[in-house]
Amino acid sequence: MDDRDYMQLAIDLAQRGLYTTSPNPRVGCVLVRDGDMIGSGYHVRAGEGHAEVNAIADAGDAAGATAYVTLEPCSHTGKTPPCCAALIAAKVARVVVAMTDPNPLVAGRGIKRLQDAGITVETGVLEAEAKALNPGFIKRMEKGVPWLRVKLAMSLDGRTAMASGESQWITGAAARSDVQRLRARSCAVVSGVDTVIADQACLTVRADEMGIDPDIALLAAEQQPLRVVLDSRLRLPVDANILSQPGHTLLIASAENPKAQHALEQAGAEVVYLPAAHGRVDITKTLQLLSERHCNEVMVEAGATLAGAFIEAGLVDQLNVYMAPTLLGSEARPLLQLPLSTMAQQQRLTIESITPVGEDWRIDASPLK
Amino acid sequence: MDDRDYMQLAIDLAQRGLYTTSPNPRVGCVLVRDGDMIGSGYHVRAGEGHAEVNAIADAGDAAGATAYVTLEPCSHTGKTPPCCAALIAAKVARVVVAMTDPNPLVAGRGIKRLQDAGITVETGVLEAEAKALNPGFIKRMEKGVPWLRVKLAMSLDGRTAMASGESQWITGAAARSDVQRLRARSCAVVSGVDTVIADQACLTVRADEMGIDPDIALLAAEQQPLRVVLDSRLRLPVDANILSQPGHTLLIASAENPKAQHALEQAGAEVVYLPAAHGRVDITKTLQLLSERHCNEVMVEAGATLAGAFIEAGLVDQLNVYMAPTLLGSEARPLLQLPLSTMAQQQRLTIESITPVGEDWRIDASPLK
Repeated sequence: MDDRDYMQLAIDLAQRGLYTTSPNPRVGCVLVRDGDMIGSGYHVRAGEGHAEVNAIADAGDAAGATAYVTLEPCSHTGKTPPCCAALIAAKVARVVVAMTDPNPLVAGRGIKRLQDAGITVETGVLEAEAKALNPGFIKRMEKGVPWLRVKLAMSLDGRTAMASGESQWITGAAARSDVQRLRARSCAVVSGVDTVIADQACLTVRADEMGIDPDIALLAAEQQPLRVVLDSRLRLPVDANILSQPGHTLLIASAENPKAQHALEQAGAEVVYLPAAHGRVDITKTLQLLSERHCNEVMVEAGATLAGAFIEAGLVDQLNVYMAPTLLGSEARPLLQLPLSTMAQQQRLTIESITPVGEDWRIDASPLK
Repeated sequence: MDDRDYMQLAIDLAQRGLYTTSPNPRVGCVLVRDGDMIGSGYHVRAGEGHAEVNAIADAGDAAGATAYVTLEPCSHTGKTPPCCAALIAAKVARVVVAMTDPNPLVAGRGIKRLQDAGITVETGVLEAEAKALNPGFIKRMEKGVPWLRVKLAMSLDGRTAMASGESQWITGAAARSDVQRLRARSCAVVSGVDTVIADQACLTVRADEMGIDPDIALLAAEQQPLRVVLDSRLRLPVDANILSQPGHTLLIASAENPKAQHALEQAGAEVVYLPAAHGRVDITKTLQLLSERHCNEVMVEAGATLAGAFIEAGLVDQLNVYMAPTLLGSEARPLLQLPLSTMAQQQRLTIESITPVGEDWRIDASPLK
């Protein structure tokens, strides 16, 4: 076992918080002394103990140990005391950090504080793997916007529904379960009012459909992602499915409509007005708003028009396309409303992976900027 | 090493004939005595030695050996003497066969002849793997039609070209090299006259683009697949690229046009008339014709209309779809001209594999019948 092996264990632990830590990052910590792992911990959810504190509590006595932490320990007091203080108080001898704090205002402060206390600090061990734990937290800290995924489902020939609109269930149960896991790791799920009405969409995380450890699934379902519906003229009916679900629904409108607003607020929704752009709610401003609300990863589950608009605006970090083993033919509806006329306008992608999900396949791709 | 291990060696040998044996099947043979492999061989090309004969020649003395053969040894005299006679004359003690002859008229005869000569015969060892060597030969023998693959190239959103027709090179060099290998293993490549004209297509195997052992590539390029152009009214210009390539070009027309026919024949093409169906050359009759010409695997490299027609007619055994990492948008041309209007009409598929080919991905799928 070397530094990388122990850090991998810390990363595996951090992963357990995948569905529950938001708006905090997923962090894991392992304590090792004389080749023995004497304690470990991870952050479960906001307001509860950070990974380092949990690991120290697990060890009891951590004096002289090396702490492997996936993210630079915090030096500020938030909802809980700073982890640097805890590590110093526990008299650990050495701290190995995978990545520094992505917040440029505090990056390096935790490391300095540890060093000032005489602790040896090393950084950059499995940095790429640690960064992959928290794409949303990192992007929000570095750029002030959430990390955006767009989920789509299509036939092999790139179609989503027949021309008539007939469509339900082109992908199978395993893919729908996978979508549940994507939702659960998201801080917000964004859709358009037409899709929400047409599909009677709930956009909720349902613990029994996640296909994971039931205890973690229940924790995940307790903190439903924020449901965001772009509804420029507040057309959502007050009896829409989405308004009677656990969690919070945010309607973003651009044309003032006090009467509809009042009725929807009575039905449990929150209504926020943002300026319009190109005749619909400004999607860039929508993402800024979600960042202000501490949303790390945001997922778009929308129709071809809204999904296409996010891509056209260059706002997408990853496409998750579920491809069903079927052909819907040339009259069927397109994957994305994306009107391009020359090859020079094509949106090039990097395909990161294609993996089987039941009888369907999931394509993860990122747009080249 | 057990029977399966030796048969795997024979299959690996058979694979070396992938690009050259047609219209014969790909066959490999290994001779083993007292645990030693004393000889091996495979069929290289029609008119030359069969696998068993080559293996016996390689061994010199094969008396008392076990012969592992991927296909039941032939009992009839074709261009070469029957392999059964050679095995009997060589005094082998035991023959292990992966699959029986797919020709229902002769299946089992070779085995019986060996048994009558006192040789122990076992069958069915790695049968599925052996069948995968020769999908075309088997289908032609069993059903009297070739095994048909349709090659397509598309963007991730299922498009082949911009609405204007602008399109060239949506896939990369590795995918084009892979297509060369698909062509080379095909007995015939089928296209439509509009595609051949628009793309100035050659439909040839080019040894230097195959990306394989140059000696095998040269052998493959020596026996170009038959080029078949569906050209119902004989509109192909006499100076078309395809007519000046090595190998043979067959034009299939449905409306008699003696003047054009004469000019095209002068330019090196063969012209055959088949009845029309739905206003174009009958594709079912086209495949029957190719079977009569001993075509095992046939590859369609055509535009969306002709490719769609083969799928709609239920004639396709496998789709090979090269997916490029790009979005061409909702105005771009469809993968297939396949006008379906209800979900009940969808063409379900089995996706057999999705594998990276350079920056593109190849999807192999077979239509559910």
